[in-house]
Amino acid sequence: MDRSIHTPEGVRDVFSEECRKKRTLQRKIEKVFQVYGYQEIETPTFEFFDVFGREVGTTPSRELYKFFDREGNTLVLRPDFTPSIARAVSMYYTDEAFPIRLWYQGSSFVNNSSYQGRLKESTQMGVELVNEDSPMADAELLAMTVRLMLDAGFREFQVSVGHVGYFQALIKEARLTGEGVRQLRELISIKNYFGVEELLESLRLRPEQSRALAEMTQMFGGAEVLQKARTLTRNREALEAVERLEQIYEILKDYGYEKYICFDFGMLSRFQYYTGLIFQAYTYGNGESVVKGGRYDRLLNYFGKNAPAVGFCVVLQPMLDALERQKLAEPAPRTRTMLLYPDFLEKLAVGMAKEHRRDGLDVALVPFARDKVLEDYIAYGKRNQFGGIVYIQKADAVFAIDLTVSEIQPVEIKQMQGGEQA
Amino acid sequence: MDRSIHTPEGVRDVFSEECRKKRTLQRKIEKVFQVYGYQEIETPTFEFFDVFGREVGTTPSRELYKFFDREGNTLVLRPDFTPSIARAVSMYYTDEAFPIRLWYQGSSFVNNSSYQGRLKESTQMGVELVNEDSPMADAELLAMTVRLMLDAGFREFQVSVGHVGYFQALIKEARLTGEGVRQLRELISIKNYFGVEELLESLRLRPEQSRALAEMTQMFGGAEVLQKARTLTRNREALEAVERLEQIYEILKDYGYEKYICFDFGMLSRFQYYTGLIFQAYTYGNGESVVKGGRYDRLLNYFGKNAPAVGFCVVLQPMLDALERQKLAEPAPRTRTMLLYPDFLEKLAVGMAKEHRRDGLDVALVPFARDKVLEDYIAYGKRNQFGGIVYIQKADAVFAIDLTVSEIQPVEIKQMQGGEQA
Repeated sequence: MDRSIHTPEGVRDVFSEECRKKRTLQRKIEKVFQVYGYQEIETPTFEFFDVFGREVGTTPSRELYKFFDREGNTLVLRPDFTPSIARAVSMYYTDEAFPIRLWYQGSSFVNNSSYQGRLKESTQMGVELVNEDSPMADAELLAMTVRLMLDAGFREFQVSVGHVGYFQALIKEARLTGEGVRQLRELISIKNYFGVEELLESLRLRPEQSRALAEMTQMFGGAEVLQKARTLTRNREALEAVERLEQIYEILKDYGYEKYICFDFGMLSRFQYYTGLIFQAYTYGNGESVVKGGRYDRLLNYFGKNAPAVGFCVVLQPMLDALERQKLAEPAPRTRTMLLYPDFLEKLAVGMAKEHRRDGLDVALVPFARDKVLEDYIAYGKRNQFGGIVYIQKADAVFAIDLTVSEIQPVEIKQMQGGEQA
Repeated sequence: MDRSIHTPEGVRDVFSEECRKKRTLQRKIEKVFQVYGYQEIETPTFEFFDVFGREVGTTPSRELYKFFDREGNTLVLRPDFTPSIARAVSMYYTDEAFPIRLWYQGSSFVNNSSYQGRLKESTQMGVELVNEDSPMADAELLAMTVRLMLDAGFREFQVSVGHVGYFQALIKEARLTGEGVRQLRELISIKNYFGVEELLESLRLRPEQSRALAEMTQMFGGAEVLQKARTLTRNREALEAVERLEQIYEILKDYGYEKYICFDFGMLSRFQYYTGLIFQAYTYGNGESVVKGGRYDRLLNYFGKNAPAVGFCVVLQPMLDALERQKLAEPAPRTRTMLLYPDFLEKLAVGMAKEHRRDGLDVALVPFARDKVLEDYIAYGKRNQFGGIVYIQKADAVFAIDLTVSEIQPVEIKQMQGGEQA
């Protein structure tokens, strides 16, 4: 019985001011998605296991919430929207060869170990651009990321940009596979130069191959990093990756957003489905990224459609936390008015409420209990984030009380008609 | 592999125009909740089993989606929001004695047998008003129901109103329990007068008790039904239920909404937690109700807070279906403009897109492939619900194409500056 009043570990309620702030942010992000010409799509909260299976390369099976339907099929709470959107696009846009732009919002679920302290249900919003393999498409997603960070209110942030093709070309050339690649990926991700050197020594690579891979831990910063990446290898595919990033960077200059971009060749996503550009947005004082994205040109193929695609996703909670910590969260306006009435004036109260609601005001009817005093309602209004009170004392004596000021006192309203407390 | 491109039975994707219509409706309903002074709350998608357990009286256990967390606790996808909100209110508003008004929206999940053809995941929106046991509170929820039906666009609809106290008082007086009550409830719900008579005969009730219970199958219609309900019994609690409905009806007259109300004493909800008023909104040609609600004065007690409450929930899909069938669904405006550009004018296209987006227009950049002709893009724009195309043929030759008219032809835009295709 006692347990029933708690929420399971890793999930939580969002209400009152926190909920208003969250919605305000969501609406801003939604607006960015819309002005870039994306259309909303809703996919089911759970899907067949195969949609998120090992071949797709999303979340490890042990971190999926799994259960069964009546037919005994394994169902999974979506850990990530991209495979679901890829499935949906393959179903509904089977023969569409022109650009498809979709956006989504909703909960995703990862059954991580609780000691990590991260949320198991998290609100995500994101976009997917299918049927476009151009640098323009990649640049568009980066521009949207910058724009939504700006619109969210951030001033100090950066979008780290990498390309999985560079790393893949180097390990292919060095004929590395399996466990060696896994270890290397991990060491590069945490930028452990000496660890990479040591590992590569044991794997007996040629010196210039070792050097290029070890240097990946150091290759982060401005556009000069692209220059450096060119000098480290003569591998054609690796150089194509660099050229791609150069093209994207040029387009971002047209958007006027190049100053927010920083390159990071050591960034390697845990999602295996990425095939080209990958990126993450970070802001001051936040270790965790708030936007994650990349190009995944082979994922749709798994669902039966041969189409390139690029997308990103915003994780709301770390973004809200960062806004809060940087004191950038907009104070959510207190739009509610309490219409306080004595029981013998119910009819008048209903009429007034109706009129004010027609004018678009948010009005909560609250009866004045005989055993309470006005101060009780002022305290109630303050702790429940009302903006003000319209207090009907008698049919011909109505007071307005502003709860957003420090000096709270009733002001008599002379004229009753015409929405005067607006 | 093949199965992975499908969605599990009973869940589906919503996209394109259908998604826009759904959002439009949700925003209208949200607006009603706000002007009545309700604040949004988000609860987790899954909760501990106990929140929806048998004592709570929501969905039967076999229809819950159940799974386990890492600690072995049984988790349940919420089948209904009310118990979750009751839990949350008990947690966060433990000592609040004044009215609490909350609204929610999200998915709920019922693992019904697939032959019923109903959705297993459905979007619901609703409100809960806690700490108010007055007829004013009941009437407010009914007024909101009428208002949201009107705002949704319905003209022909009715809100059926009943009171569980009437039935409960009669069965208590008749000392009926267990299986007899269950059968009686079912027969009354389907308005089977003779079935009820036959059942009661076998149960050997007093004639006037039998008559009152059998008559419940016939007691639906306007305010005259309340008169009739008074004549059938002298049971004090049953008469109190009737009096309550009379009070609510009087207040609805103040709202000007009484003409949408019809009484139905035979309406008995499958949710066992209701204790007073119950109601459902129906519209022309829809067997299924689109709004369901009622008073549940004992539910919060289960979670540790002793507080009366009343609430309702809107089920989006049947409401959208009804709007569609009655041809009342607003055509969702096509706000997207395709900015079609040749690859050598990328820079110009980015600049134009940026300018128009700043003006709030929804602009999708689409490169003009060398192997395609303009007609291909017109066809693509039409099937993907673009409102129009701005076609940059050369730096000094730009055309506007309206896709919402039957006679589609490019019109040259002379002046490039100033958002002229708005």
